[in-house]
Amino acid sequence: MSKNFKIDYKRKERIGFQEVIFGASKTIEQLDAIVEDYQKNKQSALITRVQKVKAEVLCERYDQNFYDSISEMLLIGEFPIEKKENEVAILSGGTSDQFLVNEIYYTLLYFGRKASRYQDIGVAGVHRLLDNIEELKKFKVLIVVAGFEGALPTVVGGLLPQPIIAVPASIGYGIGKGGTVALHSMLSSCANGITVVNIDNGYGAAMAAYRIINNV
Amino acid sequence: MSKNFKIDYKRKERIGFQEVIFGASKTIEQLDAIVEDYQKNKQSALITRVQKVKAEVLCERYDQNFYDSISEMLLIGEFPIEKKENEVAILSGGTSDQFLVNEIYYTLLYFGRKASRYQDIGVAGVHRLLDNIEELKKFKVLIVVAGFEGALPTVVGGLLPQPIIAVPASIGYGIGKGGTVALHSMLSSCANGITVVNIDNGYGAAMAAYRIINNV
Amino acid sequence: MSKNFKIDYKRKERIGFQEVIFGASKTIEQLDAIVEDYQKNKQSALITRVQKVKAEVLCERYDQNFYDSISEMLLIGEFPIEKKENEVAILSGGTSDQFLVNEIYYTLLYFGRKASRYQDIGVAGVHRLLDNIEELKKFKVLIVVAGFEGALPTVVGGLLPQPIIAVPASIGYGIGKGGTVALHSMLSSCANGITVVNIDNGYGAAMAAYRIINNV
Amino acid sequence: MSKNFKIDYKRKERIGFQEVIFGASKTIEQLDAIVEDYQKNKQSALITRVQKVKAEVLCERYDQNFYDSISEMLLIGEFPIEKKENEVAILSGGTSDQFLVNEIYYTLLYFGRKASRYQDIGVAGVHRLLDNIEELKKFKVLIVVAGFEGALPTVVGGLLPQPIIAVPASIGYGIGKGGTVALHSMLSSCANGITVVNIDNGYGAAMAAYRIINNV
Amino acid sequence: MSKNFKIDYKRKERIGFQEVIFGASKTIEQLDAIVEDYQKNKQSALITRVQKVKAEVLCERYDQNFYDSISEMLLIGEFPIEKKENEVAILSGGTSDQFLVNEIYYTLLYFGRKASRYQDIGVAGVHRLLDNIEELKKFKVLIVVAGFEGALPTVVGGLLPQPIIAVPASIGYGIGKGGTVALHSMLSSCANGITVVNIDNGYGAAMAAYRIINNV
Amino acid sequence: MSKNFKIDYKRKERIGFQEVIFGASKTIEQLDAIVEDYQKNKQSALITRVQKVKAEVLCERYDQNFYDSISEMLLIGEFPIEKKENEVAILSGGTSDQFLVNEIYYTLLYFGRKASRYQDIGVAGVHRLLDNIEELKKFKVLIVVAGFEGALPTVVGGLLPQPIIAVPASIGYGIGKGGTVALHSMLSSCANGITVVNIDNGYGAAMAAYRIINNV
Amino acid sequence: MSKNFKIDYKRKERIGFQEVIFGASKTIEQLDAIVEDYQKNKQSALITRVQKVKAEVLCERYDQNFYDSISEMLLIGEFPIEKKENEVAILSGGTSDQFLVNEIYYTLLYFGRKASRYQDIGVAGVHRLLDNIEELKKFKVLIVVAGFEGALPTVVGGLLPQPIIAVPASIGYGIGKGGTVALHSMLSSCANGITVVNIDNGYGAAMAAYRIINNV
Amino acid sequence: MSKNFKIDYKRKERIGFQEVIFGASKTIEQLDAIVEDYQKNKQSALITRVQKVKAEVLCERYDQNFYDSISEMLLIGEFPIEKKENEVAILSGGTSDQFLVNEIYYTLLYFGRKASRYQDIGVAGVHRLLDNIEELKKFKVLIVVAGFEGALPTVVGGLLPQPIIAVPASIGYGIGKGGTVALHSMLSSCANGITVVNIDNGYGAAMAAYRIINNV
Repeated sequence: MSKNFKIDYKRKERIGFQEVIFGASKTIEQLDAIVEDYQKNKQSALITRVQKVKAEVLCERYDQNFYDSISEMLLIGEFPIEKKENEVAILSGGTSDQFLVNEIYYTLLYFGRKASRYQDIGVAGVHRLLDNIEELKKFKVLIVVAGFEGALPTVVGGLLPQPIIAVPASIGYGIGKGGTVALHSMLSSCANGITVVNIDNGYGAAMAAYRIINNV
Repeated sequence: MSKNFKIDYKRKERIGFQEVIFGASKTIEQLDAIVEDYQKNKQSALITRVQKVKAEVLCERYDQNFYDSISEMLLIGEFPIEKKENEVAILSGGTSDQFLVNEIYYTLLYFGRKASRYQDIGVAGVHRLLDNIEELKKFKVLIVVAGFEGALPTVVGGLLPQPIIAVPASIGYGIGKGGTVALHSMLSSCANGITVVNIDNGYGAAMAAYRIINNV
Repeated sequence: MSKNFKIDYKRKERIGFQEVIFGASKTIEQLDAIVEDYQKNKQSALITRVQKVKAEVLCERYDQNFYDSISEMLLIGEFPIEKKENEVAILSGGTSDQFLVNEIYYTLLYFGRKASRYQDIGVAGVHRLLDNIEELKKFKVLIVVAGFEGALPTVVGGLLPQPIIAVPASIGYGIGKGGTVALHSMLSSCANGITVVNIDNGYGAAMAAYRIINNV
Repeated sequence: MSKNFKIDYKRKERIGFQEVIFGASKTIEQLDAIVEDYQKNKQSALITRVQKVKAEVLCERYDQNFYDSISEMLLIGEFPIEKKENEVAILSGGTSDQFLVNEIYYTLLYFGRKASRYQDIGVAGVHRLLDNIEELKKFKVLIVVAGFEGALPTVVGGLLPQPIIAVPASIGYGIGKGGTVALHSMLSSCANGITVVNIDNGYGAAMAAYRIINNV
Repeated sequence: MSKNFKIDYKRKERIGFQEVIFGASKTIEQLDAIVEDYQKNKQSALITRVQKVKAEVLCERYDQNFYDSISEMLLIGEFPIEKKENEVAILSGGTSDQFLVNEIYYTLLYFGRKASRYQDIGVAGVHRLLDNIEELKKFKVLIVVAGFEGALPTVVGGLLPQPIIAVPASIGYGIGKGGTVALHSMLSSCANGITVVNIDNGYGAAMAAYRIINNV
Repeated sequence: MSKNFKIDYKRKERIGFQEVIFGASKTIEQLDAIVEDYQKNKQSALITRVQKVKAEVLCERYDQNFYDSISEMLLIGEFPIEKKENEVAILSGGTSDQFLVNEIYYTLLYFGRKASRYQDIGVAGVHRLLDNIEELKKFKVLIVVAGFEGALPTVVGGLLPQPIIAVPASIGYGIGKGGTVALHSMLSSCANGITVVNIDNGYGAAMAAYRIINNV
Repeated sequence: MSKNFKIDYKRKERIGFQEVIFGASKTIEQLDAIVEDYQKNKQSALITRVQKVKAEVLCERYDQNFYDSISEMLLIGEFPIEKKENEVAILSGGTSDQFLVNEIYYTLLYFGRKASRYQDIGVAGVHRLLDNIEELKKFKVLIVVAGFEGALPTVVGGLLPQPIIAVPASIGYGIGKGGTVALHSMLSSCANGITVVNIDNGYGAAMAAYRIINNV
Repeated sequence: MSKNFKIDYKRKERIGFQEVIFGASKTIEQLDAIVEDYQKNKQSALITRVQKVKAEVLCERYDQNFYDSISEMLLIGEFPIEKKENEVAILSGGTSDQFLVNEIYYTLLYFGRKASRYQDIGVAGVHRLLDNIEELKKFKVLIVVAGFEGALPTVVGGLLPQPIIAVPASIGYGIGKGGTVALHSMLSSCANGITVVNIDNGYGAAMAAYRIINNV
């Protein structure tokens, strides 16, 4: 098979961050070839949505590895040693959203930012959010994950002044299956100035936060 | 034109309430014939969604009339004199939802119930709801109207124990146009035991509340 | 793994019923940690939509258990001993809807209510419904389950005066696959005052009934 | 303007009925040219969905005319003198569906069949249908019109053995706006052997009935 | 398990044909109980959409059986001995539609009608249809199966005068996946008097044909 | 108002054809400013979808003009004098599609190509197409317009070898309203190698044909 | 009419900006009452989506006014005198998007920020973007407006490092009508870290930019 | 099993190319019968979308075979020996699209055309396209594959004059899952004269290109 990819190593120079690989629709062979390319260029490779069977094969081939089975994030290489804290907070409604919370967390870690996680802040028990308002004021950016009806970013948006990135989770059933309801709900929010990323796009939310804290 | 309708006057006997007319898709002539039929049977006729031009013609023909131009509800006849209070509360986010709040209010009035209206309890400023929690506890049924992302019933559902009937309003734009987002959001609510009616179905919500307070 | 949930044990005090766990998108490890938490608080834990393989593992770990494989409801602990009867009737069209009928039944049982089940009351043979009208009049709330075209609640709503909670079932194929047709049909019903929950949301329908019988 | 149409006068010979014109998207000039063509061929022209302003102009130009403003059907020429009765029954829920009932009625009249109309047989009061069952048995084909949740054909299908053609009406609001819910409901019917035509396609339903009574 | 079904044995008397079982969403145990009920009533049981694994178990339990793995139709009992021919023709585009052609064929066989099958009459080679026009004229009803763009019934409808029942097949990919495009295409047909059933509803199409040939 | 546009006059040099203006969402003032810019550059301006009221104002301001009210195409300037013929044929089903046939025709005329129009070649009378097959073989490109079920390109594709550009028309009603069914039907065609443009995009189809005849 | 609104004057204190009024679904009387309330509190009132007829009435009543007919923004009061520049750039494809560009521009002006507008940077002529790359690097936030296929934010995202807020415009026709395609395209972007607001939500995009520049 | 297919061997004579088999929904037995038929007619059979397990069985039965596991294309027989080059270029964004690039490539090879592949020309790094513009000018037809937001054909269309066939790939997630967003984006393109095929219809795109290069 002739090589059918070309890693965009100049991306960091151009827009401030290097390429991350989308793993879901690539075969082990394709991922292996890509990782090898990163190794030759002496760079750590972060790959999103690597199904467990594929991750296991790659982890056997490369010693320096980290795999989070909940978010299916795979790192071949190392996270940066120094990390900035207190810049990004990740809020979510509970256990079912954890795969996204982790995808956001590890993406930011790859770029040297250690986010704080506030889980189980569900909108069906709004006191859990109210109890944390003061503490949440110290962060520069809030990333808010929600499935089902996706109401959490709206409530947060009425209480806190920072940039809010809403992430719809594909958690739900019936009409809410697949996350479309949460997505549409966030886009239609009556709160002001909330922005939204694609369903389950934790990676994109992390990058949007990074664009803010790295440039503004 | 031969008569093409038959009012279901035995409905009250059968299921506890008389027939209300859906006015939106009927011509003035069709409505006139129906009202005449009610008059012959010595009953007040409540008609929903009567566009203003049609209502004006009918109000000229029948002396005993009441028309609310915001909800487009038309009554030919009289509301009952005695009314029960403190059974139903109607909550909504503000001015734009008023057409629905009124549709619910006048439907219940027609059946002898005087509901209390709590307007401008929007989810983007959750303190406005929290301030009213104690007062809201006294009602038997809560009807919650919301457009845009439709999050209000979810937050209410986490704070109050009564039956909650959620009414999606066709207020919004872009992906939220027509009220589908509010509807789907209410159906997917992570709060427990919320039930939902069709978009803009204030009449149906009032009847659902009436089924509860009249039978349970 | 740090703990990423916080059971809302004060919910009962606040709104009259304790938290039930949504099991579909949680791993065995996550469910196990949650159950343990309930045990420490000396409470029975009801978990919905627990796939069989997951249920079997949990049932091995905890002696006091009940699992209904048709509805995938799992109870770790015991149902209350005393149960009120004759409050709620569950109507459905037949064998294919049984998973929902049972989800409703066991949820109500967990809250001390024993519902009556009327199965195979399909709309394609309306005599089966007509034969039961008198008996159905004694209940306070009717929960009506239907898949395919979802017409049953409409017909029931024209014959009986009680509160009616319609539950669309994901039974059908072609354009009716997934239950969206039944859901939309119930929302568009020409019968008066019917309310609706999400597709397959038997749990939510039971809770809505409970809100009525516990508060009104 | 060069002539851009060619009436299919051999259709009757080929498949048993002549061409009917779809009027909604044609200008007065286009319709006029077509009618002239029919006149030259000494044939009556039936045109569906002719908006009132267009019909008035055409009725002034051609003496022999018939216009039904409810269904917007326009005939330039005459209906056949002899008509067969007791072949087709049209069932519907009431006043709002009348535009479709008439479209079916006049189409069949154009082909020499006089249908019987049973209006206000709504599913929310099923006794109105049950009262007519014996009488309905005498027809060869049943055409059933319904808007909102579209449940009527399903109930009819469980009670009567004839061919049933279901016609969804664009009557409803919210999620039922435009008739899609009625259409999907009829297609998903749990009753056996019901067939369906497009929303508001009264003309098509009449032609389907005609194909049956003219050929079988 | 208490019995949760009641076979509608009086259906034949009421509307002319006995009940057929929908097998897709029933367990082996549920199907077994139903078949036993038929056996006790000395009737053959026809079950649609029985997945192979389930069919094999049932075929082992009941000697008199017939299973067609392409359409997943299962008969426990026997087909009637005498069969009428030349009443129904089934047209389709080819191999991929065969599962539906067979579902139609065996349903009609169960009711004593032997249909003729014309396969590989695809619209992309219209000569294959034109070659058969004369022969097709002899049938009373035409059932036309098509997937992809679903154009075949439209072309047939312009060439033949009989009742035409269009059956959309869930054959296709991309935007045509699941058969929705074929369904919508058939409903929007510019040909006159075509009626449509749900996607993959071969059984319903057969019953619609049976309603015609048995009653008209 | 500062100037908010920049005509791409180098487009012809870059990709072979100059810019055409999309008129539907521009005000008269905006169009006037654009036309003036073309005039200064001594070029004819072709504007698509100019509503009649706007066209009349512009035609009064600029002497050299051509407006086709059916397609709403406006030319300020002149069509080229020399035109190539016999390269492109436009096929359609009849009068209702004429607005698109003309949009295609005048766009090609603006680029010096005179297309041939074959109207009323509808698929419900397939003989009208078969009669023209030999004549149609002489063209280099076929553009096929169809509304309703959109089947015409599929039938053409099975009979003729040239490039076929399918144009869905927004002609239809019910489920076919807006042209989505025709679009999806063309995309799902079982005929080989048909390409499709957006609903009502006659201009785009003409440009696609022009790309072929100008470059291949 | 009793007062049915309560302006959230403490919003600025709580989250950093005062309330802006959504004008589309409010009557003149409702808007007038709201404006009066602002006047009493000595604050300027910014109202979005005020149709021209409504704006004219209000402008007659209040001397200090500003109305932009393209974006339908109405200010009763004055813009702040001091404005920060060089913080936000607005990019768009041309004349048709101007209503959104202006909505963003005037919202930011109301909060004391003067954005720079780069119009006619369409993706169909990518050189127009490439020519401005260096200049665009100086801004803190980029707001990118696009209708039709909505590709502009994706291309910008690959070339520039700042936070990018994508705004889908309801400009387009056929399948792209209403802006849904642009919205979905932006959400699915293969560029990294782009966030999106609702269709035509220029106001929301401005507020999202303000959250960034005011807090980070 | 009676033979239920008829290969259209005269297609080449009629429209210039022989029939290719759609393999996805056919069983091994059905495919085997079809291949045997081709063999008897001494023709190579090209089958699209043959799942690996089915391909392996067929490859064992027929010696002359070629199977590409990425595109799931199966050839029983041989590719033509002489091949024309430099006529068609295939552009795509990277590794994930390769299954479509190969489907296009092998289809053209079967008809004696050797296309050139330009992979990893993604729109998020537009320089990769700009670097290849001069080289791309030499081809007669450009086929452009893209998943996610599907923006590549739009950018290409603004830079190059040839016929452009856009192929949406089912690569993406969330709202972009299944390729619908890429499809709609390509249809709504603001670039001129781009045509589109169904999602994942690489075969159709190849045939459309072949129609151009073989006939124009």
